[in-house]
This record gives sequence, structure tokens and C-alpha cells, in this order.
Amino acid sequence: MPGDPACLAHIFYEDEDTNDSNPMPKSIAPDLEKFLTDNDDRIHKELFEFLRIPSVSAKSDHNTDTKRAADWVKASLDKIGVPAKIYPTAGHPIVVGEWRSAPAGAPTVLIYGHYDVQPAEPLDLWTSPPFEPTMREGNIFARGSVDDKGQLFLHIKALEAHLSTRKKLPVNVVVIAEGEEEIGSEHLASFVEEQKKLLKADAVVISDSAMFAPGLPSILSSLRGLAYFEINVQGPKGDLHSGSYGGAVVNPAMALARILATFHDENGHIAIPGFYDKVREWNPKIREQMRSLPFDEKTLMKETAVDSLGGEKGYTTLEKLWIRPTCEVNGLLSGYTGEGAKTVLPAKAMAKVSCRLVPDQDPADIEKLMKAHVAKVAPKGVKVNVKHLHGGRPWRAELNGPIFDAARKALSGRLREDTRRSGFTGWIRIAG
Amino acid sequence: MPGDPACLAHIFYEDEDTNDSNPMPKSIAPDLEKFLTDNDDRIHKELFEFLRIPSVSAKSDHNTDTKRAADWVKASLDKIGVPAKIYPTAGHPIVVGEWRSAPAGAPTVLIYGHYDVQPAEPLDLWTSPPFEPTMREGNIFARGSVDDKGQLFLHIKALEAHLSTRKKLPVNVVVIAEGEEEIGSEHLASFVEEQKKLLKADAVVISDSAMFAPGLPSILSSLRGLAYFEINVQGPKGDLHSGSYGGAVVNPAMALARILATFHDENGHIAIPGFYDKVREWNPKIREQMRSLPFDEKTLMKETAVDSLGGEKGYTTLEKLWIRPTCEVNGLLSGYTGEGAKTVLPAKAMAKVSCRLVPDQDPADIEKLMKAHVAKVAPKGVKVNVKHLHGGRPWRAELNGPIFDAARKALSGRLREDTRRSGFTGWIRIAG
Repeated sequence: MPGDPACLAHIFYEDEDTNDSNPMPKSIAPDLEKFLTDNDDRIHKELFEFLRIPSVSAKSDHNTDTKRAADWVKASLDKIGVPAKIYPTAGHPIVVGEWRSAPAGAPTVLIYGHYDVQPAEPLDLWTSPPFEPTMREGNIFARGSVDDKGQLFLHIKALEAHLSTRKKLPVNVVVIAEGEEEIGSEHLASFVEEQKKLLKADAVVISDSAMFAPGLPSILSSLRGLAYFEINVQGPKGDLHSGSYGGAVVNPAMALARILATFHDENGHIAIPGFYDKVREWNPKIREQMRSLPFDEKTLMKETAVDSLGGEKGYTTLEKLWIRPTCEVNGLLSGYTGEGAKTVLPAKAMAKVSCRLVPDQDPADIEKLMKAHVAKVAPKGVKVNVKHLHGGRPWRAELNGPIFDAARKALSGRLREDTRRSGFTGWIRIAG
Repeated sequence: MPGDPACLAHIFYEDEDTNDSNPMPKSIAPDLEKFLTDNDDRIHKELFEFLRIPSVSAKSDHNTDTKRAADWVKASLDKIGVPAKIYPTAGHPIVVGEWRSAPAGAPTVLIYGHYDVQPAEPLDLWTSPPFEPTMREGNIFARGSVDDKGQLFLHIKALEAHLSTRKKLPVNVVVIAEGEEEIGSEHLASFVEEQKKLLKADAVVISDSAMFAPGLPSILSSLRGLAYFEINVQGPKGDLHSGSYGGAVVNPAMALARILATFHDENGHIAIPGFYDKVREWNPKIREQMRSLPFDEKTLMKETAVDSLGGEKGYTTLEKLWIRPTCEVNGLLSGYTGEGAKTVLPAKAMAKVSCRLVPDQDPADIEKLMKAHVAKVAPKGVKVNVKHLHGGRPWRAELNGPIFDAARKALSGRLREDTRRSGFTGWIRIAG
């Protein structure tokens, strides 16, 4: 689920498959293009209206705004001929619109989006006000413009172009828009569970992930999973004076450091026995495609202000980030951390450690392996507890079949030069 | 300096030297014993009066009490014929009493003590009120009874026993009592510098360290030194999402753990090259004496609630604690340390690390070795800074010569069985 902190959106661009015999359309259909050109001003105004609603789901003092955004989405769908309904939840409401008049046997496509946005703070970092959309160099700047109001609006306007011009769609369409994506989609899973019939679909389109680069649209085809641990090392029952006890009582902070240092070998491979056993290899062709992507390590280094990159030997940086598992320290705490010197032998030390997982690794397996490894390397004289806080399974699509063919066809090589720099005006391509 | 957190009081009991031909006195001199017995009630009352003064130097609302304790010490010295003077400082005053009527050529002994005490909080852990001295099973319980009012009082009463009974002392005596020992003795060093003539002495007696065990008085003969470092590892310029960047951007918390893990080898020896180069070996006879001390590792394990001890192989626990250098982590801080999971790749990680030093290690040398080692083992992709926060040189006495002979004579084998369990009533032995 995009936005789920447990998953990294892993995206890449897939070249046209050689066994796909359908020729790529060279440009947008003239009737749809004419509709969009004729209605450009109105469509722009509508988007700006949507972006002006400060539907910050995290803040309860914005609850009326969040409700207003749900109403706005419902009205937009109703207006174009996709009758919609607002479903209340214990949190923010879910909007669902339905168009089910496709020829018998036509598939159903479920389009997902969210109408809530992140808080805009810190406000002083905004060049223009977050809820007053502003054009600069062909881009629209506003909170939610690319996450996810812009994309949700784009789908609605694509449906409008078809329905207004041709009076029909080639597929049945269900649009679902939630208002809690930025706060963990707390009520979405139970809603999906309860509304299986309403939401039943042959394909789901989610436009809430990133493009690889401007002008390079991308299909998100895998997500790394997660196994998140807290490791607690207990030494003496209370903090001791390091002068009086140091050298004989085992130091839990040093023990923790030595445990963490066993997690990788000198080549950056994870050294927890069995860790890679279930890692499925990737198709060499896909890896070849990843290597051909216009990725510049120097840009990453400049962005993060580091003078070199690290990680697992034998893999490119994109492979390390997308298709290889990792083991990272997310937090450390022990003893005295204030200013200056305090000669304490700490009673305990804590590390937060998380592993990104790839198919077919399983968080429950990794938990077992981690616990066994830590128990083996932990020194005598301290008690070490490994707690599995949170897990998520990795996911990977096979990128085969008519759904991915259709998505590829919709995206491949169809962006015009002048639309490359605009997240918004490229919208017709996705639904075209 | 006792109480200096930079130094561990390293104490042990030295057996009678074979080249010391003076026979040990079998018991206390009868005239002094009679005086003490006759005045036992009064002496007890005086001590209790002293202990009742809440001279908490750390708390300014006790400043009048602290001043009262200084006055009390001055009056006690005046009364027994050791004329005293109060020397104001920018903090709490220093009391100095002088008796300089010994035969020409007699040495001068400077006796040091302090009349201030630590705060008594938390009060609910006291069985009896901290400033209302109470006898239980032959022991006196009160704040300051053993640190350091009891010992300072003991010296004054020993002087009184001699002066009252024999009207003289065999040596010149200067008594100095400060009121800032518990808050770092801030004004003592400059006072000593300014009052070199007043304080000039052939021997200094400080009764402000521990006995090895009840009935086993001890001469503090060495102090470990210190080199205290803060190690800062800087990774990316800001915290990153561990899913988006983990595996390629070097994790500073993991880098720090791997650096710390190089500080010891698998046998607990410090693996920083050159670390032991200047360590002076101890006399095998002294090590033999240390091994003969009645030390029980199980007591230490029970006290600290650990199920085994660690440290450097090839040394006893007391050797590890007293005469071997150490390298300890005193604090760790990085990334997310709150409740639950946050998938952050931290921008930085910090460790406080301190080395206990033994003669003839020098903090400045250790700083150079530590910095060179860390620079060598630090991975690429992070910037590591080692800052030397604080240093103290180790000290060790040779335990030879007339001063140590006299101290040994005063202590060796002279405690009666019935005084073993009482810190207070053993006083006459030290000055006897």
C-alpha cells in the first residue's frame, strides 16, 4: 500500500514486450484531445478548487475540510455520470463511484485514490501558500498536487473526456477515494472486507506512486517487505560507575555494538545464517533493464550529502535499493547521551533494527533467524531480548498478462516533450 | 582526588613488609585508651551534633548549614588546642587548624577531610532520618557518617586524645577541612596554590576512601586515569527513509557499531594498536597479595544482578578493576529511540567512550592512538569525528619509605574483633 511505512515503493519502467503485437498509438485520440483542449480552462479551475481544500486528515481541526473534500469528489463523479456515494467510517469517509454500463463480459477496473493530504508544516519552507495552488515554470505547486489529489482528479477527468465525447467506456469502472491514506488507512481494510461485492474488479489502478524521472512513467511492480526488531541488552540491574565496575561487569552497550557488527560481513552481505535462503532471483532481463535506467549515483550522493555509497558488493545501487534485502539500524540508545562526560557503565542498551525483505522472504522466518543468530553471538554476562515489533510481506508482480500489457500500452513512449515537466497535464496518458 | 569522577579509588591492603624491623604494637597505648573510654559519651554526643548539621554543599538553601559545619570544625579544633582559621572562598569556606610545637626537625603531617555531604534524596529510601544519627547493630546511620564527617572527626578526636593526655604530638600537624568535596572541590586547587607555605607538609593523610572489607583497613595506593571520548558519525545530511535509501547510503549507526566492535578482540583485550605500549607491569608480589584478598566474585555478581562476569582474559576480577586499562561505552544515541517502529536511516550516530588508564599510559597518547585507529577502521560514506572530552593521568604510589611504613604500622593487624563492624569506633587505630 503506498504510504505504508512498512513498504518501499519499488518502481521501474518496463520496455515494450517483444511479444506484444499491438502497435503503440502514436498520439492521443483526436476527439478526446479536442474535448480536453476546449475544456482546459474549466478543468484547471476545478483542480485548483480541489487543491484549495485543506483536507489534512491528521488534524481533527481540519475535519470539516476533509469532509468537504469527500463531498467535492462525490459531486465531481456524479457530475460526469459516475454516480457516487459517501460511506462513513469511524474516521474519514470513503467515496465510491460506479459506472457499470460496459458491454456484457467487459472487465471491471477499480481506480483508487485519496483525497486527504499531509500537514503542510513547516509553513516557512513554502515558496507559495500550500493551499493556494500556484503555477511556476509549468508546474503546479500546492499540498496534495502530486499526492494524491492531482492523480485522482486526472482519473476523473479522463473518465469525463470519454463519457462526454463517446457517451461510454470500454470497461466497467469503480472509483474509490479514501480520506485516511496519510494516517495509515486505518479503516480501509475493513471497508474492503465488508464491500467485496461493491469493489470486485479485474484490475486495480493506483496512481499514488512515483515516476522514475520526468518524462519516464513507471509501473510499480514490487514492494519490499519488512521485519522490524527492537533488541534490548540488559547488563547490571542499574547504571554503575565505569571506574568501579568497568572491565569486569560486561558492558551492555559494547555488547550491543558487537552483536550489531555481526549482521554484515566485510562485503556488506547480511551474515545472519539462512537470511538469503528464500530470496528469489530476478529475471536477468529485468535486471538488465534496471541497469539501463538513467540513474546517476552522483545525484543521490549530492542529494544526501555523502561522499560515497556503500552496501552489498556485486549489485548496482538501484538493485540494492529495490530488489535486495537490507538490515539497518534505525535507532540506538544507551547510558549517558547528554553534553560532556559521565562515566557510567550503562545498565542497558537498545537498538531498533529493521530488515527490508524481498520475495519470497517471510517476516516470521526472518524473526526466527534473527533471534537464533543474536542468541548465538550474544556474550555471556548480559541478557539479550529480540522483539519483533512489526512485519510486512514483500510483494512482486510478474508483469505478464493483459492488464500489464494495457498499462504498458497506456504509458509507453506517449508523453510529449512539453508534458514531461508537468505532473498534471500528463494525466490523459494514463487513462487514454 | 577522592570523589573525582575521573578516577577510581583503587585500594588494597599491603601486608607488613619484611624489611620493616619495627615490631607491631600489640594494642592501643593504655593512657590514650583510658582517655577515650572516660570520654566516650561526650565524644559520641559531639559526633552526633556534627552529623546533625545538613551541610549539603550542592544546595544553596543549605548554605547557612554548610557555614555552620565549617564553624563547628573550627571550634572543635580550637577547643583541643589546634588553633584554626576559616578561609573564605568564592564558594564554601576552608578551615585550617595548625599545631606546630613538635620538636625541631620533626616532620609535618597534613590531614585532609571535608565537612560537606551529598544531598540525602531520595528520602524515602532512608530507614532513619539522614540528619538524625541513629545506632543500629553497632553502626551509626547518618548522611556523612562515613563520607567524610566520621573520618574527619576521628582525626580531631585522635589529636585530642594525644594533646589532652600527653600535652604534645610527636609531629607537627595541619588539618584542612573543605566544604566543596561533593561538588568538585572547585576552589581547593587555587587555595592550595596560594597557601603553599601554610600547607607545606612531609606527608598527607586523607581518610576519604574505602576499606576493602570490614576489619580490613586499606591504603589507597593507585588511581586509574581516564581518556574520555565522544565519537560522532555523520552519514547523510538528514534522516532518510530506510526503505528508500537503506542498502546504498551507509548507515551511520551501523558504522558506529562496527567501529566500536573493533575496540576489543575476542579475548577482551583492547585491540587499538599501541594501547598497551606504556602499561607498566606490576610487581608479582603485589599481584600475589591482590589474589590473596578475600574477594568473592559471586558477591559482585549478586550485587549487580548479572549471571557472569566478563573482561580481559588472563586477569583476576580485582586486577581487571584495579590495575588493567579498560575501554567502555558510556552512551549511545542515534535515530529513533521512542516506542514502536520508525523506519529511519539516521543522519548521525554518537557514542561516548572512555578508557581507564594505568601507569604509565598518558591521556594525550591514548587520544592519538584512538583517533588513528578510528580513522583506519571507519567505513567510506560516513564522516567520523573523535573528540577528546576529558583526561586524567593515572597515579600509583611505590609504597616504600617511612611514610608508608608508618601507615602500615598504624593499620596492620590492630583492629579488635569488636570494632570490625563499626566504621566509627575504629577511628583511634588510624591515628594511634
